[in-house]
Amino acid sequence: MNAEIIAIGSELLTPQRVDTDSLYLTDQLNGLGIEVTCKTIVGDDRERLASAVRLAVSRSEIVLMTGGLGPTEDDVTREAVALALGRKLVYHPEVTQQIEQRFARAGRRMAEINKRQAFILEGAVVLPNDRGTAPGQWIEHGQVSVLLLPGPPGELKGMFELQCLPRLQQKAPRQVIRSVCFRVSGMGESDVDQLIAPVYTKYTNPATTILAGAGDIQVHLRARCATEEEALGLLTEVGTPIEALLGDRIYSRSGEPIEVMVGSMLRESQATLAVAESMTGGELAARVTSVPGSSAYFLGGFLTYTNAMKSALLDVDPDLIARHGAVSKETAEAMASGARARTGATYAVSITGAAGPDSSEDKPLGTTYIGVAGPNGCDVTHRQFLGDRSRIRAFAAQLALDLLRRRLRA
Amino acid sequence: MNAEIIAIGSELLTPQRVDTDSLYLTDQLNGLGIEVTCKTIVGDDRERLASAVRLAVSRSEIVLMTGGLGPTEDDVTREAVALALGRKLVYHPEVTQQIEQRFARAGRRMAEINKRQAFILEGAVVLPNDRGTAPGQWIEHGQVSVLLLPGPPGELKGMFELQCLPRLQQKAPRQVIRSVCFRVSGMGESDVDQLIAPVYTKYTNPATTILAGAGDIQVHLRARCATEEEALGLLTEVGTPIEALLGDRIYSRSGEPIEVMVGSMLRESQATLAVAESMTGGELAARVTSVPGSSAYFLGGFLTYTNAMKSALLDVDPDLIARHGAVSKETAEAMASGARARTGATYAVSITGAAGPDSSEDKPLGTTYIGVAGPNGCDVTHRQFLGDRSRIRAFAAQLALDLLRRRLRA
Repeated sequence: MNAEIIAIGSELLTPQRVDTDSLYLTDQLNGLGIEVTCKTIVGDDRERLASAVRLAVSRSEIVLMTGGLGPTEDDVTREAVALALGRKLVYHPEVTQQIEQRFARAGRRMAEINKRQAFILEGAVVLPNDRGTAPGQWIEHGQVSVLLLPGPPGELKGMFELQCLPRLQQKAPRQVIRSVCFRVSGMGESDVDQLIAPVYTKYTNPATTILAGAGDIQVHLRARCATEEEALGLLTEVGTPIEALLGDRIYSRSGEPIEVMVGSMLRESQATLAVAESMTGGELAARVTSVPGSSAYFLGGFLTYTNAMKSALLDVDPDLIARHGAVSKETAEAMASGARARTGATYAVSITGAAGPDSSEDKPLGTTYIGVAGPNGCDVTHRQFLGDRSRIRAFAAQLALDLLRRRLRA
Repeated sequence: MNAEIIAIGSELLTPQRVDTDSLYLTDQLNGLGIEVTCKTIVGDDRERLASAVRLAVSRSEIVLMTGGLGPTEDDVTREAVALALGRKLVYHPEVTQQIEQRFARAGRRMAEINKRQAFILEGAVVLPNDRGTAPGQWIEHGQVSVLLLPGPPGELKGMFELQCLPRLQQKAPRQVIRSVCFRVSGMGESDVDQLIAPVYTKYTNPATTILAGAGDIQVHLRARCATEEEALGLLTEVGTPIEALLGDRIYSRSGEPIEVMVGSMLRESQATLAVAESMTGGELAARVTSVPGSSAYFLGGFLTYTNAMKSALLDVDPDLIARHGAVSKETAEAMASGARARTGATYAVSITGAAGPDSSEDKPLGTTYIGVAGPNGCDVTHRQFLGDRSRIRAFAAQLALDLLRRRLRA
């Protein structure tokens, strides 16, 4: 069973905006075994939208539209669908009443213009909107279900889950889509691909997608089968040899990011963590503390952007910095050890490096040292990252978390 | 003059991926005065792509396609366009030679399969690809220019700028698009809209778009005119009253984020900055240090996630925390003052609050205190943010930067 999505709004045709509603809808539809085969983004243009709707209903079994249901002149979805499907728009006074009541609850009066939102396509089911004024509409048009949904993500999600999911479940085929995601640290995208392509290219089902982040590769396998058992069987058949090839570079099989995995390991081993960041300027700690409940293991840390701060806050010997430089194995080690001593944390992770634009020392851009101090001493890892400031910082934070993961596992 | 963009690739129809190539292309086309009126995303499906191409050439003057030019069976763009336009694909041995030479330079042999990339549409101009193997193609089909471009962003950008921009400049209308962006802190999206709607709704040109971030609203005005003078005149006509209404809540007229603006102000006043973060756990400092050259004014800071760390690292009196709580005006003040004293920075900014999931104290989720300590003493601001952990942290970091901006301006 195929669906297509039409996102409506001129702002979605500017260089600043992407249509994210369709990602949510795709995820929901895939969960029902429904594939999305096409996405279209059109501006607030009645004729153009009508022709997109005509094409969509001619080839897809479900057509979902988001946006353009507001009360203003710009909101053309209702009229365009009426035009495309050859149906009248009928005024529903009870919808106006509901909108009026909504305004009244907020102590406001409904503007006359909101009556536009009470025009419903002939034969459509009205989908109540519990988070906004625009009701949705569901039209069975021949063999095709046509859904008009609001654009604001909160309104869309509420309406989809309450009103559309139950209806779609009845229409959905006896097909399931199941997926698995391996997250990998310490390898580049092309290296991952080269390693596992001999396995996954033998299969079109499951479909394999490799997504690359900063030092963080996701391998998605997606199986489409008649039964859940069959889908999970295929995922095991292809996933097991891929897991064997990637080995301990896989840090997560649940799709969770590395800061969540490291957090669980710290919690399990009842260990605490402190950081000492120079180059990354808080980015490592921000990731650690983005995890709800991280206060159970994260004590705190030091941002030492200058040499004087490294000495004042972390007791790094100024002579050591003078001898080896702030971007050095020795400084990274002293920072990690200093942070551990000052906080009493079980582990302390330090990052020092050159992220540009210019390095005060003779170290090439991207030179990075990461220290991990713990009960069994301090290790320092050196890397040379490529790219701009933000890429170097993101790679360094990811590697620091991966080094801590490896230490915790050891 | 209208363009539309078709992005090709089944991975773009998964919940994980958005088409970002079209944002780049839209930006480039708008710069030439060309509007993008529709975007379509289709999978690797020859028939479906062919029907999208047929519709596009029936209504737009420029049709840009990205992706599907690789060497494998999945890469169907060439065949689909041949089908849609009724043109033959012709094998060009000289294109194979170029691909072979590219492989040879990397010390590799071209696979037989790459010969598929040497099939060119009858009448098309071959667009060399200096960053990959897939050549692009440019077809003049009646009144319509049809462009086949590679999907990988690096290849796309190289080819577009070298091969397509000069050709499009000749076709482009005598029309310019100019835009201006005001960035606003300290107001919500609907408040901004309510305030400035009486001005901008009087105009369809320039078009106004309001984008909302965490405590950070962007107001974009976009004028489309025959001459640059006319476009800039319109932007002034509409922008000036909007500026007057928003007043000092506008922190940037250049589109730059607040951390860049605050950085410039610190640099100009030869002041230095330190931070003391609890709830935001490094997010404020990560934003400050994301700016290239921030080492000129950022000294460092303290991440004090526990009460013990607030006392040990920032000299916050344990009795004060016991009396008022870690999330309090008093603690925020002591943190900012402590950070300033320990680092010797001109200004120190502190953040303490409850971002959830659970608060050890009796403070409701979202309660936040931000301290700004400087030569003229320390101010503490209290806010109650709504939303989840990541939203609360992002709003707090943005407000902290805005409070520092206001102090620096004073």
